[in-house]
Amino acid sequence: MDIKAQVTETGNEARKAAGLLANISTTVKNRALLKMAEVLVKESEHIISENARDLEYARDKGLSGAMIDRLTLNEAAIQGMADGLAEIAALPDPVGEITGMRKRPNGLLVGKKRIPLGVIGIIYESRPNVTADAAALCLKSGNAVILRGGSEAINSNLAIARILQGVLKETSIPEGAIQIISTTDRDAVNEMLKLEEHIDLIIPRGGEGLIRAVVSMSRIPVLKHYKGVCHVFVDESADINMAVTISLNAKAQRPGVCNAMETLLVHRNIAGRFLPAMAEKFREAGVTLKGCDKTSAILPDIEKATEADWYEEYLDLILAVQVVDSIDEAMAHIEKYGSLHTEAIVTSDYKNSQRFLNEVNSSTVLVNASTRFSDGFELGLGAEMGISTTKLHAFGPMGLEELTTTKFIIYGDGQIRT
Amino acid sequence: MDIKAQVTETGNEARKAAGLLANISTTVKNRALLKMAEVLVKESEHIISENARDLEYARDKGLSGAMIDRLTLNEAAIQGMADGLAEIAALPDPVGEITGMRKRPNGLLVGKKRIPLGVIGIIYESRPNVTADAAALCLKSGNAVILRGGSEAINSNLAIARILQGVLKETSIPEGAIQIISTTDRDAVNEMLKLEEHIDLIIPRGGEGLIRAVVSMSRIPVLKHYKGVCHVFVDESADINMAVTISLNAKAQRPGVCNAMETLLVHRNIAGRFLPAMAEKFREAGVTLKGCDKTSAILPDIEKATEADWYEEYLDLILAVQVVDSIDEAMAHIEKYGSLHTEAIVTSDYKNSQRFLNEVNSSTVLVNASTRFSDGFELGLGAEMGISTTKLHAFGPMGLEELTTTKFIIYGDGQIRT
Repeated sequence: MDIKAQVTETGNEARKAAGLLANISTTVKNRALLKMAEVLVKESEHIISENARDLEYARDKGLSGAMIDRLTLNEAAIQGMADGLAEIAALPDPVGEITGMRKRPNGLLVGKKRIPLGVIGIIYESRPNVTADAAALCLKSGNAVILRGGSEAINSNLAIARILQGVLKETSIPEGAIQIISTTDRDAVNEMLKLEEHIDLIIPRGGEGLIRAVVSMSRIPVLKHYKGVCHVFVDESADINMAVTISLNAKAQRPGVCNAMETLLVHRNIAGRFLPAMAEKFREAGVTLKGCDKTSAILPDIEKATEADWYEEYLDLILAVQVVDSIDEAMAHIEKYGSLHTEAIVTSDYKNSQRFLNEVNSSTVLVNASTRFSDGFELGLGAEMGISTTKLHAFGPMGLEELTTTKFIIYGDGQIRT
Repeated sequence: MDIKAQVTETGNEARKAAGLLANISTTVKNRALLKMAEVLVKESEHIISENARDLEYARDKGLSGAMIDRLTLNEAAIQGMADGLAEIAALPDPVGEITGMRKRPNGLLVGKKRIPLGVIGIIYESRPNVTADAAALCLKSGNAVILRGGSEAINSNLAIARILQGVLKETSIPEGAIQIISTTDRDAVNEMLKLEEHIDLIIPRGGEGLIRAVVSMSRIPVLKHYKGVCHVFVDESADINMAVTISLNAKAQRPGVCNAMETLLVHRNIAGRFLPAMAEKFREAGVTLKGCDKTSAILPDIEKATEADWYEEYLDLILAVQVVDSIDEAMAHIEKYGSLHTEAIVTSDYKNSQRFLNEVNSSTVLVNASTRFSDGFELGLGAEMGISTTKLHAFGPMGLEELTTTKFIIYGDGQIRT
């Protein structure tokens, strides 16, 4: 079978399954998720041996240590995946929720009922645990899923997906609900992105290059973020200890993720006290600073930042620092250089806290807390499918609810329009 | 200025205005809307004389009577526009609403705050009242708007838009909030659809040809419906009088609109009693029927329906009729030939009413009521920007809330992630 036929067949199977999946009971879905968790652990040995094939290939290809790290599955990682599935089983089922049922003057009862989107396509890189997470989130939200992982993890992904599919066979859930593209040929992605009759939503997860390629090729709506150039603004009224603790956490707790701080904005009236204390902590944590002229006047040893630095998503222990004259200048900087992802203010001032929350229109805006909280689990969504900086449909971390839509349902007793 | 520069300039102005508009108070917005209503009526004579220029051109071009009818503005039509603006002023402001503020175990308060989308582009045909409606809905929901009406209504649209813009000048609302593309050159649409940095959402309103052209060219997300192939299913348990009344209303009350019924599905066990009574009413209303073989067996005088009829959006006093063996066959027919727009069941059976509501995944599903209620005003949204059969972001009639998104807002007191 050629690639186009193969991918189209996958789309057909998923579309067929989606029609049935929307009405599978929560109990049946949860039971399947718990069974999947159990079987994943039971089949650890098999998964690890398939993963070893990917790792061997990765070493031959000379992939970086970080890449190999993200690719590696051991018993703990598999247990982590299983725990994730159990957590998703424990979350409330969004499907079928009815919101805002209201009576119209003519007696019609009008409500909105939450329904699955249908078929969701996921295109992702490296980490094979996404296979289990994404399949579980889609299953719980009543969606069929088409998984397309990176070629570097193909054996691990196939092993995991086959196990999940095997569990479906023992349930009343249609087998087609979990699909995986088994070829590593790149044309498969192109073909997948043309299936606008089969796939309702595409979610790409990976580097900016992958995401831009998906967006430019897709005929299907895409929810995505390109990058996270996240800011912390230390207002003049900030508690200095709190500002230091939050800035350190936002930058250094896990620098390689999208909700890590990339630029620190500091009010000039606090810079002289805050920056030296901060720089000391950053030095200990191994963070390299790049500063504007005013920053350099206070911290003479650091590198000068260039215009390009303000746009940069370092994903590393590097931080750009800008001293600003006012909250207005801080917010203007965020608007110009930001990515609509996540921004935080550290302040003791009521008015400035409210202005920052109201006027900064990034997908997550925090007062006196680390940007690292911009995450589905941390915000109480229970799980995360990804983060959207697209304003349509979902903005910010996406959980189960964001994988659904609503339809109007109307109860009448013979009403006609006059 | 060339067209590309002109449209880009419009986009720049709208984007600039959108940044300010998000924080304009409800009072200021409502006052502006009421003032616009007042000035539109006061300037009726001017609007009507500009409209006369469009009408003269339309007659020269030999446009159809229906087109000319939709294009015509008189005092009553202008009063209707003004009333519409007053109604939008009276609706609650969606911007700033905070939903689901919850406390996390670490003390973070996490909420979602409703914010405008930013800049909305509207591409529409014929009816010049859309100019006022769309501008008002966007203004109330805090969005800047770029209006692009059809060339046949250009003088009317410009006259209305200039009046609305004139009112803005006397308020603290940024003037750039209401933009209109003043050239009728078709390239302007192409250029507009490339402005993904300036426009957040495109809403096309008009015939299927216009909408398909917009979708194929746009780099910006589009909310739309191509057509409304709406069904009424008369179940075997239906009250025959109610079924006749609803079917007649759904087909004939206003046949040229997207929520009119196009195909009538009838359970075989009621067909012998229902169809003759129904046909009598349809005959009186001037409705032409096209039937399947089983329908023809009961109504021998009617034309035979072909496969193409089941896909047809007649927008006219023509109806396709299919007799089905079961509710399952009716729902399968809707899935195969439907457009995800609006479907109704007439039934006295509890289980079938629930199955239809649950299993038919069109954007509006009704029990014992006319499909004609699938409309923003009728469903209690207060106003309507259009209807979406795209599942992402909005599904069904779109009101003010559908012109917004939500961001996460988080109140902390120094929390960091561990």
